[in-house]
Amino acid sequence: MKVGFIGLGAMGSAMASNLLAAGHTLTVWNRSVAATEPLASLGARVARSADRAAQGEVLCSMLANDQAVREVFLDGGLLDAMDRGTVHVNHATISVALARELAAEHEKRGLEYVAAPVFGRPDMAAAAKLNILVAGKPAAIERVRPLLEAMGSKLWPLGEAPERANVAKIAGNFMLASAIESMAEATALTRAHGVSAADFLDVMTNTLFAAPAYQGYGRLIAEQRFKPAGFALPLGYKDVGLALAAGEAQRVPLPFAGVLRDAMLEALAAGDAELDWSALALVAARRAHLDERE
Amino acid sequence: MKVGFIGLGAMGSAMASNLLAAGHTLTVWNRSVAATEPLASLGARVARSADRAAQGEVLCSMLANDQAVREVFLDGGLLDAMDRGTVHVNHATISVALARELAAEHEKRGLEYVAAPVFGRPDMAAAAKLNILVAGKPAAIERVRPLLEAMGSKLWPLGEAPERANVAKIAGNFMLASAIESMAEATALTRAHGVSAADFLDVMTNTLFAAPAYQGYGRLIAEQRFKPAGFALPLGYKDVGLALAAGEAQRVPLPFAGVLRDAMLEALAAGDAELDWSALALVAARRAHLDERE
Amino acid sequence: MKVGFIGLGAMGSAMASNLLAAGHTLTVWNRSVAATEPLASLGARVARSADRAAQGEVLCSMLANDQAVREVFLDGGLLDAMDRGTVHVNHATISVALARELAAEHEKRGLEYVAAPVFGRPDMAAAAKLNILVAGKPAAIERVRPLLEAMGSKLWPLGEAPERANVAKIAGNFMLASAIESMAEATALTRAHGVSAADFLDVMTNTLFAAPAYQGYGRLIAEQRFKPAGFALPLGYKDVGLALAAGEAQRVPLPFAGVLRDAMLEALAAGDAELDWSALALVAARRAHLDERE
Amino acid sequence: MKVGFIGLGAMGSAMASNLLAAGHTLTVWNRSVAATEPLASLGARVARSADRAAQGEVLCSMLANDQAVREVFLDGGLLDAMDRGTVHVNHATISVALARELAAEHEKRGLEYVAAPVFGRPDMAAAAKLNILVAGKPAAIERVRPLLEAMGSKLWPLGEAPERANVAKIAGNFMLASAIESMAEATALTRAHGVSAADFLDVMTNTLFAAPAYQGYGRLIAEQRFKPAGFALPLGYKDVGLALAAGEAQRVPLPFAGVLRDAMLEALAAGDAELDWSALALVAARRAHLDERE
Repeated sequence: MKVGFIGLGAMGSAMASNLLAAGHTLTVWNRSVAATEPLASLGARVARSADRAAQGEVLCSMLANDQAVREVFLDGGLLDAMDRGTVHVNHATISVALARELAAEHEKRGLEYVAAPVFGRPDMAAAAKLNILVAGKPAAIERVRPLLEAMGSKLWPLGEAPERANVAKIAGNFMLASAIESMAEATALTRAHGVSAADFLDVMTNTLFAAPAYQGYGRLIAEQRFKPAGFALPLGYKDVGLALAAGEAQRVPLPFAGVLRDAMLEALAAGDAELDWSALALVAARRAHLDERE
Repeated sequence: MKVGFIGLGAMGSAMASNLLAAGHTLTVWNRSVAATEPLASLGARVARSADRAAQGEVLCSMLANDQAVREVFLDGGLLDAMDRGTVHVNHATISVALARELAAEHEKRGLEYVAAPVFGRPDMAAAAKLNILVAGKPAAIERVRPLLEAMGSKLWPLGEAPERANVAKIAGNFMLASAIESMAEATALTRAHGVSAADFLDVMTNTLFAAPAYQGYGRLIAEQRFKPAGFALPLGYKDVGLALAAGEAQRVPLPFAGVLRDAMLEALAAGDAELDWSALALVAARRAHLDERE
Repeated sequence: MKVGFIGLGAMGSAMASNLLAAGHTLTVWNRSVAATEPLASLGARVARSADRAAQGEVLCSMLANDQAVREVFLDGGLLDAMDRGTVHVNHATISVALARELAAEHEKRGLEYVAAPVFGRPDMAAAAKLNILVAGKPAAIERVRPLLEAMGSKLWPLGEAPERANVAKIAGNFMLASAIESMAEATALTRAHGVSAADFLDVMTNTLFAAPAYQGYGRLIAEQRFKPAGFALPLGYKDVGLALAAGEAQRVPLPFAGVLRDAMLEALAAGDAELDWSALALVAARRAHLDERE
Repeated sequence: MKVGFIGLGAMGSAMASNLLAAGHTLTVWNRSVAATEPLASLGARVARSADRAAQGEVLCSMLANDQAVREVFLDGGLLDAMDRGTVHVNHATISVALARELAAEHEKRGLEYVAAPVFGRPDMAAAAKLNILVAGKPAAIERVRPLLEAMGSKLWPLGEAPERANVAKIAGNFMLASAIESMAEATALTRAHGVSAADFLDVMTNTLFAAPAYQGYGRLIAEQRFKPAGFALPLGYKDVGLALAAGEAQRVPLPFAGVLRDAMLEALAAGDAELDWSALALVAARRAHLDERE
């Protein structure tokens, strides 16, 4: 298939390379051109503008946030430049509000729109093992299914309205942040009573919480290894903000999200913006002044 | 080995039956005598008093809470009645404060004391698949190891001070409650945006959160099946209280535990005391007044 | 002085009438023209556009929120239409971010800008008893002092940077909301123990809390008289949002604001959007299911 | 009247001296005898035991907390030693649960019991300007009215059940703590935006919050003068605990109290146990890492 891909961060690059590997004809674009080089060496064409990358049957995009999506597709006029019938597959984690707006803007222009946010870190993207949440019109999803299957190990269909995939992604990231905070508080408690985070999390992540989310972040907390960040605090803060905004839109109180917001702000105030979001464990430990005791 | 077992609720009965199955000579006692009958039919002797059950080499106890443990062992004089050198294996989920007090009271009387709280529900206890946290003097633990191995699939040693096993159990239950609350809030959010709890949790509990804790409680939340309770709300409330008390003792703030406390109180105020603690999902849904919309 | 006034809600109308009463030449404008009539009958000229109202030495504005201010002054081009040297006195409760942006936009055009948000309800505005927070360049403030003194009983200077007045207003409203919530929770507690809100608040608001904020809202809570709203819940929700946004901008965690946000969302989910924000007391009572007991 | 007074801390001593000044015959007792000396020099008899101080018509007590009250009156046997018909006026801030228990224990022994907790600091006690909450049987209250009027400027009758006065006192102290926390967070916010706590609180405590509670604590926060403590953090923490316990007893969620609990624990973890509870402002400032910016 002739496919365009824009947004070549760590995730996007890995996803795009799997489209190439699956034999698709790929044209890529990225704001900073350096990120296109590895893909070019694998056989991708590098477009000079987003518009040019969008001339295939399908355009996949993996941009950083609402602002980037808005700048490229709406303010930057990319939607206006796309041919009727083109399918846009949006992998970004964006707000429910923008998801709705985008659905309407695509509709208005005769473009197909599929929301396909993903769970998985760059290594899973590289291994084509992403879990992909999908929402959009069935026919559009069928058209892009080969692409999604080349990038992920499993598709999770969530209905027609694109924002349904986005709210699920947002709620899932909220659960991740909550899991991290619960480990942060629990280990502050056990440490204060003499049980190390490593000993405690060894039990928990091999029994009741033997799941990828807990094992990955649990290891970082046990080893106090928050750098380099797999997923940096400001990104986590943004995602908690998306959950709060989605709650506001439909009037759903989210007390855990409020606690997360404050803990992340506290981490950012402490200057930890470059750390992984599992550094919430530092906040819990500082509040208990644990380092002054040990 | 000659073993006594007191406290024959659903957990204790299942654990005791595995001691019998492993060939140990078992004497049991329970406040209400009816609970002793199934074990008697399997070959256990039924003691007329707790004292008489405590005349073997080892006494295991699985009582409901601090109050029950205090009444039987301290106020009821059971510790005074035990022979020097007897090992008491305490499986109950009790406070760190009582754990410390018990350690001292056993020491004073020349009794051995092993804290061995467990993770697992009655069905896992019956299948001898409990995860057992263990803390106490190495020699005492070695003596009771065959018993613990007959009841659990894995032992998790946590050091000498018995309260270390208790704080880990308390922190673990706090993590469980947090996992439930995070699913409660997340599903309130997705439902308000049109994605059912079942659809959303299907994704999450088969991907990032593919762990027993999430799968079990996730199913109850997806199916709104809170009755009969596997673990009733008042027990969950008690356990969150143990976490808060352990935090207070060592001055560790636990904001998630504060949120849990209020949500559970709200459930109890609503008359949900007989429901499973996963009924926190009802509280989150009521706060968003979801049922009035759908 | 020749003064323009735009934004003639309950507050703005009362404030403008005091400018007339003090002998100033007043030109008014309001989006819906009906609101201009009472002032016209008192001698104000009614402008056909905001631009025309802005042709005096000073333009006062009392618009509803960030959006209204942005629409009129920035997107609507009012700033571009004003003569260099004109002083704009902005009484609205707006975000710190917009306050900064406005300061820069005025500066750029050679306009003077004074932030002058007020504390007080319409009856106090009518009586010229407002407390007015003022920030801006000293010379500009001196020029508009006679106007401010005609509208308020006291000016509170807060420095040169206009947003300083806004952050103080925002923080003050956050304190008001917190006072209401503390009465909401406290009276839920006393009611559950048999002491009525009226009896309890009678003590508190005549002793430790003998202040206007507590006495006014305390009366509404004691009498469960939330309608008609003096200050409706959505406005309160907006103001808590301004506090959270100001906290975010400078990385200041605000746990009380998080609690307020959730309680207000819960009230809005319950359909209480037309009630006074002291209806937070209903939320606290519902969480305790008090009405089902009494 | 022949009156006994036990518990001669700063509050109790000041209250007792006003009974002397009003011409009553006073016998005092205190655990540490030194505290009795100033009263002895004013004409009080010093009893060698609590029993002896309780031989008048009325016994007033102002002990520190539940534990002290329990030790003296219940475990220590003082209730058993008192003559039938004696009125016990209990000024202590105690739990609702103990208040109920005491009421029953007095009843059982034919003793009269009046709960009379007070609002006011030692200087107000010395000036006989306390606000006294009163609950008990009307006849008993009438008998002790002259004493209460000698110690306070106003009595606030709250009904017959003694615990009603206690829950009002507890809820009132919760409101005080909430007022402090709201100033703590609000000033962290304004400081981060360049407005000093002093400038901001000057506005607030002279306008909407022109009440003793805000003015007193506001001054301490503005001047960062937390030492010597007027009311030390551990006492505040105890009182928030009483509110949480009263909420638990009647299933009333108190989210503000949960936030207060965590903030106070954090202050205690920081080693601030000797500071006034208005030092919650330090916690809010530390969370925002304000001192590292200024």
